[in-house]
Amino acid sequence: MPKAPLPAAALALLREPNPAVISMVMPSGHPMSVATWYLVEDDGTVLVNMDAGRARLGWIEQHPHVSLTALKADEWYTHVSVRGPVVRWEHDEAAALTDIDRLSRHYGGEEFRNRSAKRVSAWFEITHWHGWAVD
Amino acid sequence: MPKAPLPAAALALLREPNPAVISMVMPSGHPMSVATWYLVEDDGTVLVNMDAGRARLGWIEQHPHVSLTALKADEWYTHVSVRGPVVRWEHDEAAALTDIDRLSRHYGGEEFRNRSAKRVSAWFEITHWHGWAVD
Repeated sequence: MPKAPLPAAALALLREPNPAVISMVMPSGHPMSVATWYLVEDDGTVLVNMDAGRARLGWIEQHPHVSLTALKADEWYTHVSVRGPVVRWEHDEAAALTDIDRLSRHYGGEEFRNRSAKRVSAWFEITHWHGWAVD
Repeated sequence: MPKAPLPAAALALLREPNPAVISMVMPSGHPMSVATWYLVEDDGTVLVNMDAGRARLGWIEQHPHVSLTALKADEWYTHVSVRGPVVRWEHDEAAALTDIDRLSRHYGGEEFRNRSAKRVSAWFEITHWHGWAVD
């Protein structure tokens, strides 16, 4: 599994609003995965944003390493996976709503519908990546 | 996270040849994820098939719990995730080629192109599931 930085083609794929799945490790030591929005920031970290009530928040706080696989829409043989530790959290509700709006606009062009949502943001660093058809 | 069995709608989604991502835990304790084909067997276990040279084979043998998230093609807000332990392996190359052919036909209608491939099959049991828009 190559270390970061990603080649340009892999980074370009990752910057598109593609379907993605994030995985984490539960306290049991077993993996858990779920579909997610994500956004690559200018500094290279990857933003994800979760409902504040999700058990997975606590799991990631306890074991901060995550893996994310993005699949190219309509052509999912092309995919890229990145992984690394969460390096920053944002628990402030107003700030996190700004982040979910950025994600929502990236994927659908509109702000997040639920304006009273309690959200939390996390950013992980890409330390390793692997891919298929992105070299 | 509900325990198995899955509701009918979730199982129906899982039986379609949808894009999917499997995740596992590496010896470091960190998660790793990758796009995959999968197939739900009549006994409810889930078949995945890997190139025999993949490091992930050893990782799963060492920590046999995996998680798989399937995204409905063209409508990936609808998704289902299932997880549980690998309960069966098939290392015999001819048998495993039969399995990758079943997967290849399920997804693309044709047998697997690389007839000299060395493949390994694994089946995991669904002990837990969660989903979105599949209730």
